[in-house]
Amino acid sequence: MFPFKNNISLDRNINRSLYLQLCDQIIGYIKSGKLPPSTKLLGSRKLAEDLNIHRKTVISAYDELISQGWIETVPAKGTFVTSSLPIITPKKIDPLASKTNLKNKSDFSFLTRPHLKRKYANTCNKNVLKIDDGCPDHRLAPIEEIAKTYRNITKKNYHKNLLTYSSVYGNLELRKALVTYLNQTRGLHITIDNILITRGSQMGIYLTSQLILPNNNRIIVGSTNYMTADNTFIEAGGCIEQVPIDDQGIVTDAIEKLCKTKTISAVYVTSHHHHPTTVTLSAKRRMQLLQLAQHYKFAIIEDDYDYDFHYSNAPILPLASNDNNGNVLYIGGFTKIIAPAMRIGYLIAPKDFIDEAATLRRVIDRQGDTLLEQTLAQMINTGDVQRHCNKVLKIYKTRRDLFCSLLQEKLSNFFDFEVPKGGMAIWVKLHSTYNWDVVYNEIEKSSIAFSTHWKRYDNDNSKHNGVRMGFAALNEKEIHEVINQLVIVFKKLYT
Amino acid sequence: MFPFKNNISLDRNINRSLYLQLCDQIIGYIKSGKLPPSTKLLGSRKLAEDLNIHRKTVISAYDELISQGWIETVPAKGTFVTSSLPIITPKKIDPLASKTNLKNKSDFSFLTRPHLKRKYANTCNKNVLKIDDGCPDHRLAPIEEIAKTYRNITKKNYHKNLLTYSSVYGNLELRKALVTYLNQTRGLHITIDNILITRGSQMGIYLTSQLILPNNNRIIVGSTNYMTADNTFIEAGGCIEQVPIDDQGIVTDAIEKLCKTKTISAVYVTSHHHHPTTVTLSAKRRMQLLQLAQHYKFAIIEDDYDYDFHYSNAPILPLASNDNNGNVLYIGGFTKIIAPAMRIGYLIAPKDFIDEAATLRRVIDRQGDTLLEQTLAQMINTGDVQRHCNKVLKIYKTRRDLFCSLLQEKLSNFFDFEVPKGGMAIWVKLHSTYNWDVVYNEIEKSSIAFSTHWKRYDNDNSKHNGVRMGFAALNEKEIHEVINQLVIVFKKLYT
Repeated sequence: MFPFKNNISLDRNINRSLYLQLCDQIIGYIKSGKLPPSTKLLGSRKLAEDLNIHRKTVISAYDELISQGWIETVPAKGTFVTSSLPIITPKKIDPLASKTNLKNKSDFSFLTRPHLKRKYANTCNKNVLKIDDGCPDHRLAPIEEIAKTYRNITKKNYHKNLLTYSSVYGNLELRKALVTYLNQTRGLHITIDNILITRGSQMGIYLTSQLILPNNNRIIVGSTNYMTADNTFIEAGGCIEQVPIDDQGIVTDAIEKLCKTKTISAVYVTSHHHHPTTVTLSAKRRMQLLQLAQHYKFAIIEDDYDYDFHYSNAPILPLASNDNNGNVLYIGGFTKIIAPAMRIGYLIAPKDFIDEAATLRRVIDRQGDTLLEQTLAQMINTGDVQRHCNKVLKIYKTRRDLFCSLLQEKLSNFFDFEVPKGGMAIWVKLHSTYNWDVVYNEIEKSSIAFSTHWKRYDNDNSKHNGVRMGFAALNEKEIHEVINQLVIVFKKLYT
Repeated sequence: MFPFKNNISLDRNINRSLYLQLCDQIIGYIKSGKLPPSTKLLGSRKLAEDLNIHRKTVISAYDELISQGWIETVPAKGTFVTSSLPIITPKKIDPLASKTNLKNKSDFSFLTRPHLKRKYANTCNKNVLKIDDGCPDHRLAPIEEIAKTYRNITKKNYHKNLLTYSSVYGNLELRKALVTYLNQTRGLHITIDNILITRGSQMGIYLTSQLILPNNNRIIVGSTNYMTADNTFIEAGGCIEQVPIDDQGIVTDAIEKLCKTKTISAVYVTSHHHHPTTVTLSAKRRMQLLQLAQHYKFAIIEDDYDYDFHYSNAPILPLASNDNNGNVLYIGGFTKIIAPAMRIGYLIAPKDFIDEAATLRRVIDRQGDTLLEQTLAQMINTGDVQRHCNKVLKIYKTRRDLFCSLLQEKLSNFFDFEVPKGGMAIWVKLHSTYNWDVVYNEIEKSSIAFSTHWKRYDNDNSKHNGVRMGFAALNEKEIHEVINQLVIVFKKLYT
């Protein structure tokens, strides 16, 4: 007889009734072969006694197991594991293995994706000041306004319909609000048919890549380029062609040269501030790029992730402005303005492309978070988003100026950099006589950290020695601290 | 001279300053070739007069355009469109075309996805009672509790860190809460390493498909099967093999037969209630399926989308319970319990698979909505989710019983069905002497509607004549109304 007494353990403190715990464990023994088909079970009275539980609990468990087909009653003989169940050879469990997590390894094949694993993050978990690669300061996020608007929306009964399945294109109110907002502020001429609401701009990059790049289709990017975008293009099956970036942005002559010899499907640009070097694409290059796209019929994937953050003059209108030819796919979002965790973005494109992107998005995650989208729509319409944007813009400008002036004053012997016209990071090049590995090694012992590794910015191995230093997420006190620590590190290493 | 007066229109009522509106429009004319390089611009005094604006506005606009590189000043001569810009031949705009949306068509190539377009939705927009295919009643969603919990979280200053970038695996608190919740209620033995938080269960299906099915890898599904899952498998590049479904669920003998002749990568099952036929996979078949998976080393993709909704007895433990061999990928979510728009789900799998899924998810949408995930974690820990679930379970059971008894009483001459043990829909087969097309046509004229088309359930053309009738989203009054309308339709057609 199977030793139930030693093998069943019931816990009155967990959130599952005793009779179901008993079921679960008996099923487990049946499935693992320890209770083979036709095994006789203890009578309910005896089992109740052994386990020190009420007999009714055992009867409920047996009833449940009978109704699920695991056990059966034979009149006048008793209760048995269902005789028609398959016979399982119990596995001998290696006592060592059982101490480790049994669910570590899959017993089937699947693809791995080494191309997505070039992460180059620094895994410093110390609670220290971090230099990121250009993140917003989440401490400034208008979170209370969001929660308040969100709650007000949920209080209105007619908003209950926001809770059921809705359009894969995104919340209608938000699409309407964006039509007005983007047409007024970015010179677009779009209707709601040109908008798909996405989960942050990353989903826009993913969707466009999946539609354009399979079958080794070629995409041109700047050298060096935003690594996650490159990863997304490779994931989609695309082939990356690199062209140089100079102080006017991506070199259009090099693009033209490539177009003459190869079929190009798309060009990826972060036209406002190139990632990572922060340079703005010049007027001349903008016009040339649009001309080339029309002539060679390629798509321009314009990732305008930090449009709102331009300090020296007004933000530069995107390539997508005045594009009536249908070449530009415009990607943006609210993660930089509001908060990284608020993953709402948009893809702006000709209607036929939007429809295909929506069709694909349907099988990825069905739709967005309608309530959050409605909240954002309301905050755009009331001007809350714009006001918040103006507020943080001023704060970030002050931080940029402070960071750059301290860098210039205290570290210009080691670094070259230009004051960025916008964005949240400075492109800082270490003089070629120094070595980032040595510097990183020393920084690790200090009270600050870099959140990304320098190799992230040199995925084509060009040895430019540049890294992005984010200034936006640090307040003025923290900026002083970071620079002071850098000074200490460099003094220690090089004097 | 370019006629600025007639071609610039400024609007004081929109959310963009006048000088930027002026910039936008001049840039537009430069980009479209109507203001070619070296064109002389009007002096600021004259242009201000023509446009009836302050001269300072024009000067600000010209300064901005100069700094962006669109125009340049030649000393003692005036202001000109930058001479080095490329020359564009202005397009003649077809006056008819300009009236339609210019952004309808892309001027580049992309892939279309006909396999994702088998939608079979009924596009009835009349505000009438709808028979859906098994949706929860969003009117019952605990939306105020969610909004309250959400707001409480946002009020705590230490929660601000939920707003910045966080783990691609999902919020840590939610993963911890799910480990306890799932281990206790579903017989799983998992740690947080086995969980990836997804956007609803659909993202779980998408991720697993993308990892397992490319290169025409074979997946076995029941005939007939949940259409969106089939679409997702084809999208991933998989090859679908169909096996029959009977009253015990998917026919495992047929799976074994296939495994003997072909390499099978995965089997997709909705074991609790097969979609669409609602049948529960029997104990015997469960054990056989697990045996086959171990023997032939395929993955079982177990989509347990409505685990919580089982009325006759306790929910049946998933295949994933007691799976220490690493064959089962378990997919679930909260869209059915809470609300369809709350798109939080989870993928449970061996650690090596979870890591790959997370790597892929990184380029799809970066991460989930951390605040909402934290909200849900709190509601699981306080027992709110379980209490809500118990509450709606009772309501849905009453609705199922009413719907089935009325169907039996009033329409059994036309339909065959079994009372489903769980879920939110009844699998209703129209007697083969009748025709769904005729019935749908008549229903369209009535005051009710079907939200999906019968063809959706017969994608292998087996002529089973079955459709899903969702009962959960209709209250008792609405159920009476729906049945009465169906009675009227059938009487009109067939008496």
